[in-house]
Amino acid sequence: MAPPPSSFSSSHQKPEIRKDKINNKLIIFSPARSKRPSDFKSKSPVSNSSTNQLKECPFCIGHEHECAPEIFRVVDDPNCPSNWKIRVIQNLYPALSKDIGTHNRGSEDSGCCIIPGFGFHEVVIETPTHPVHLGDLSGAGVGEVLMAYQKRVLQLASVDSIKYIQVFKNHGASAGASMSHSHSQLIALPIVPPSVSSRFTAMKEYFEQTGQCVLCEKPPKELVIHESKYFIAVVPFAASYAFEIWVIPQYHSAHFQDIDKDKADDLGGLLKLMLKKMGVQLNNPPFNYMIHTSPLHINDSDLQFSHWYLQIVPQLTVLAGFEIGTGCNINPVFPEDAANILREVVVEDMEENFREIHIQGS
Amino acid sequence: MAPPPSSFSSSHQKPEIRKDKINNKLIIFSPARSKRPSDFKSKSPVSNSSTNQLKECPFCIGHEHECAPEIFRVVDDPNCPSNWKIRVIQNLYPALSKDIGTHNRGSEDSGCCIIPGFGFHEVVIETPTHPVHLGDLSGAGVGEVLMAYQKRVLQLASVDSIKYIQVFKNHGASAGASMSHSHSQLIALPIVPPSVSSRFTAMKEYFEQTGQCVLCEKPPKELVIHESKYFIAVVPFAASYAFEIWVIPQYHSAHFQDIDKDKADDLGGLLKLMLKKMGVQLNNPPFNYMIHTSPLHINDSDLQFSHWYLQIVPQLTVLAGFEIGTGCNINPVFPEDAANILREVVVEDMEENFREIHIQGS
Repeated sequence: MAPPPSSFSSSHQKPEIRKDKINNKLIIFSPARSKRPSDFKSKSPVSNSSTNQLKECPFCIGHEHECAPEIFRVVDDPNCPSNWKIRVIQNLYPALSKDIGTHNRGSEDSGCCIIPGFGFHEVVIETPTHPVHLGDLSGAGVGEVLMAYQKRVLQLASVDSIKYIQVFKNHGASAGASMSHSHSQLIALPIVPPSVSSRFTAMKEYFEQTGQCVLCEKPPKELVIHESKYFIAVVPFAASYAFEIWVIPQYHSAHFQDIDKDKADDLGGLLKLMLKKMGVQLNNPPFNYMIHTSPLHINDSDLQFSHWYLQIVPQLTVLAGFEIGTGCNINPVFPEDAANILREVVVEDMEENFREIHIQGS
Repeated sequence: MAPPPSSFSSSHQKPEIRKDKINNKLIIFSPARSKRPSDFKSKSPVSNSSTNQLKECPFCIGHEHECAPEIFRVVDDPNCPSNWKIRVIQNLYPALSKDIGTHNRGSEDSGCCIIPGFGFHEVVIETPTHPVHLGDLSGAGVGEVLMAYQKRVLQLASVDSIKYIQVFKNHGASAGASMSHSHSQLIALPIVPPSVSSRFTAMKEYFEQTGQCVLCEKPPKELVIHESKYFIAVVPFAASYAFEIWVIPQYHSAHFQDIDKDKADDLGGLLKLMLKKMGVQLNNPPFNYMIHTSPLHINDSDLQFSHWYLQIVPQLTVLAGFEIGTGCNINPVFPEDAANILREVVVEDMEENFREIHIQGS
């Protein structure tokens, strides 16, 4: 059956099916399954961790020896490297192994191909201090985390047998985070995932038909939440999830790792703003974000059609049998309504909040 | 980061990437992210509901007036229709509307197509009695539920503008069920979902290459859990989820709705056995099942390549940023291990259990 009785004030009264032309998905927008869009709140908000957890968290400063090996750290003062700001480390329980061969068995066991699970699975610890979440950092602080992603992606992209790198963040247990200390992850794959190939092909077809990169086109203003110097935050026209946000470079760029410090700082500020708006409006929901970029080892000059973006998904609803069966999500909130609500959320003095939390947490 | 420290006894020690050739997916099998496969238990088991809920549940017998309109009911004695066994009713909060036009606006708003949300969304109440779950019914009782699906699918398939019908069940709140009374759902769509088209195309290509229907091939015995007269239950070679099960007709059939009573009874017994085995081994996990069938309005004689099956997914792990980003699931349990464990689970006298629960519940 379904959600609680509803009286909603959406701009849309009838269900619609919209096509996400980039990801070749159909999404059902269903006002009858919604509360009022402005009433959406997470039922399992992510709280700031208690100080108790500081003593036992291996990601906290001073506990480095409890973690898998470090790859690099970001410090303010090279003379005082123990006072780190960000650490990139191996994942103690990696999904893939960097210690096995990459030879494709091309096995016909059961008529299907088996590929050895070669790859890298790493963790980016975003802050040394337990109660500080990513959105509590300054815009420039978030920018430093993005630059840490970039540095590691550039290093891994030089491995020939790595074909695609997924950067992602799980925030909150019900979004898949097993550690409450703020962190993101990075998995370097020996294959291009089928959904990435499909997106790549769709973007290419759009370019061939129109002569334009699909994400260089200016989105309609009713879908825009906020613009910064280099980036734009929108609710996509065919959002798969309620209050999903895409943050898109306003300059053409196929690979995330081509970002520079200036642009990363700018993106950091916009990403922080989106996380704060989501937190205020949706009651600190668990969320995921994912950087969707292009496959590796292709020259940018051949990628006029392919444009990276960052997708933020607050976890507000459950994907169930219909979604697993059809691949079509049911979204109870129309994108125009979600964008309108998020645009209007006021986030109070963000930098001020940052300083307060940082001082308490230190 | 990841799951608890592990010492596992899998037949596989190294990660592998396997291709699901039917659904064009890549799945990462990762022993390092697993406990011992035999230790998997749901942390949010679904309990039998308390009798308190009987008083307020609109799906219980005697509360028919609290529900959306009935489409049909299944009764033992036509002279006593109030003593129903199964009811098919409209969903009070339908994802799609049967009351709007089907004309495709083909709108170019935002460069994307909008299709009116025409369709049917219905509920199959599987039992009049609150504490009885589907797996508590007799095999023939489950068969009657399957025949109720079939009857309604046949009715809806006669609507020209309906292109695909998804039958599914959500069991337990974290699998998306908002009502604890045992029920399934059915959504009739005015489009063929892209993932169904993709599966259909993949099955066709396989047939063209090999001259065989991919699901008519006998699965390797290490993946088989159990066989009945007409069906076989396996863990698929590239299972997307830990302990996922496919129940496949051992005769060629493109459309679920071609099932007859004899075969539905047989499937009912096997489905019941799988639900019981899952319940015993995995601690009554929340689960979803989905019937994957062929698009409508195609003659079966043109569908030698397309074969329906029922997919059961226990909800044991969270899909997070990596899975949303890449479409590749990480499965901590190798299919051969899952099949071996489920094959060996002993389910005590199923019919005896049924009688006891039914008597208590009545």
